[in-house]
Amino acid sequence: VGRVLVTGASGFVGRAAVAALRARGHEVHGVARTVPADIEADAWHAADLLRPGAPAAIAADLRASHLLHLAWTTAHGRFWSDPANLAWVGATCALLEAFAEAGGSRAVVSGSCAQYTWDPAPSASAVLAEAGSPRIPATLYGTAKQASGELLETWAAGVGLSFAQALLFFPYGPYEEPGRLVPSVARSLLAGGEAPVSAGTQVRDFVHVEDCGAALAALLDSEASGAVNIGTGVGASVAEVATAVARLAGREDGLRLGALASSDGGTRVVADVGRLRDEVGFVPRHDLASGLCDAVDWWRSEGAGQRTRRR
Amino acid sequence: VGRVLVTGASGFVGRAAVAALRARGHEVHGVARTVPADIEADAWHAADLLRPGAPAAIAADLRASHLLHLAWTTAHGRFWSDPANLAWVGATCALLEAFAEAGGSRAVVSGSCAQYTWDPAPSASAVLAEAGSPRIPATLYGTAKQASGELLETWAAGVGLSFAQALLFFPYGPYEEPGRLVPSVARSLLAGGEAPVSAGTQVRDFVHVEDCGAALAALLDSEASGAVNIGTGVGASVAEVATAVARLAGREDGLRLGALASSDGGTRVVADVGRLRDEVGFVPRHDLASGLCDAVDWWRSEGAGQRTRRR
Repeated sequence: VGRVLVTGASGFVGRAAVAALRARGHEVHGVARTVPADIEADAWHAADLLRPGAPAAIAADLRASHLLHLAWTTAHGRFWSDPANLAWVGATCALLEAFAEAGGSRAVVSGSCAQYTWDPAPSASAVLAEAGSPRIPATLYGTAKQASGELLETWAAGVGLSFAQALLFFPYGPYEEPGRLVPSVARSLLAGGEAPVSAGTQVRDFVHVEDCGAALAALLDSEASGAVNIGTGVGASVAEVATAVARLAGREDGLRLGALASSDGGTRVVADVGRLRDEVGFVPRHDLASGLCDAVDWWRSEGAGQRTRRR
Repeated sequence: VGRVLVTGASGFVGRAAVAALRARGHEVHGVARTVPADIEADAWHAADLLRPGAPAAIAADLRASHLLHLAWTTAHGRFWSDPANLAWVGATCALLEAFAEAGGSRAVVSGSCAQYTWDPAPSASAVLAEAGSPRIPATLYGTAKQASGELLETWAAGVGLSFAQALLFFPYGPYEEPGRLVPSVARSLLAGGEAPVSAGTQVRDFVHVEDCGAALAALLDSEASGAVNIGTGVGASVAEVATAVARLAGREDGLRLGALASSDGGTRVVADVGRLRDEVGFVPRHDLASGLCDAVDWWRSEGAGQRTRRR
């Protein structure tokens, strides 16, 4: 138990991580550009980490023992090639340096499955492993996350900071950005409209955001170092997920599989969860069926104007 | 011809690059923590690029068309694992972003042959090629240079900035840090002492610093993008170089080959200069014999208290 500085704490994953860290007894200090009114933490700090000097000031002020750095450019659809990925690498270097300087002992930063090479013709059971699978990212976002992860891992070993990078697979659930797969299908169908999606042959490791937050909290409390996958180890095609969401919404009639073109020729992006299970001791609470049920319920209550306050 | 911002301009390589850029007709703005009294440039600017906000301020003030970013931690022996490598990645991100923002069109940053994997058992004619040779750096310095190079290359393509990273091999010559191979052997022997070195079986691509500076200037004026080796393409063992220096100093008697232990089991680090020659159009002026002759002459005049002012 320690004092944890969480950046990106008001975001989709940050919100879940803050709840999980508090449940584990940590003193949680959330950092966000705008302090959110509806997320409980021990303290909130308003800061734009891209402002020169801001990362160093926050770290020096708080003198946290633990750091969970989730802030990054995340605008849906745009973050893959957002030039601001460069500035986030710079801000991340400044933050980690100042955190170590201020006496911090354990840091986890968010990475992504986009750091791996996505094989267009994988075997049907292929999983991506931290130690063995190639990481030649196809995007600026993946390149920036990979560059910062490799750099920080080597640097941290030199300064004696315990460090891990969480490679997040595909979180979904409450508070997700509405343009993404699960919310877009659920909201269209729940509102009585149609939901056009691609043929959806690509396979992904979808992880409920509460499990994602809980895994991050467990990883921060562990001594696992280097890259650690955050996923379920189970793959599902986009078509399967869309169909399950449509069924849960009671609107299988409105789903239009194949109505949108896809540039993905059937990649499979599924986590090897060996490190998460064995070294962190984390097992997800949700399987895909229960997770999607929870998510569709949440979007239903959102649509009915009843914002849930479960955290 | 344009307005060139040169960082690290008072350093060993920077000094030679400033001279070469001026010879090509550029308006050269040198940046250094302390403005040097003995290097001519069109203007000098004192700045510590590790201070938050400093890179952005310099770039916004100067609105240069070209950037040659050489500043980095370079303290002899210590830079390999200096924790400040992290801060230099952050400062580099901030500088490049602000340079592009201010309308800059062409940037070259210094990288290193330390970004390559150094094979302990290479073939006798092996060269390291930008496109084909693996780059898994063994040090924090190499990791930081490699991470920033990959990141900047991808980012620059997205924002339309012409970008290259110069992978410097082993510069030697006037103004070199006295603890390094050529100066340490030359100075000891010229002063009448002994020069203990290792067995010196490792092979390196030694490039005269004037050629290094001229190659950087030519690279900045070219459109070559991505990683470009800066070397001669010719390897020489450390023993050969030390012996040549001893001979030029007239003191072969003082050389103690094998007196120091070496942790290097005979690596060979020699540049493939195909890109430098064909895409940049650069060929070195010095071969090793003429370059070492020049260097030993310079150290001789230094030792006699006659500082040369050749630039």
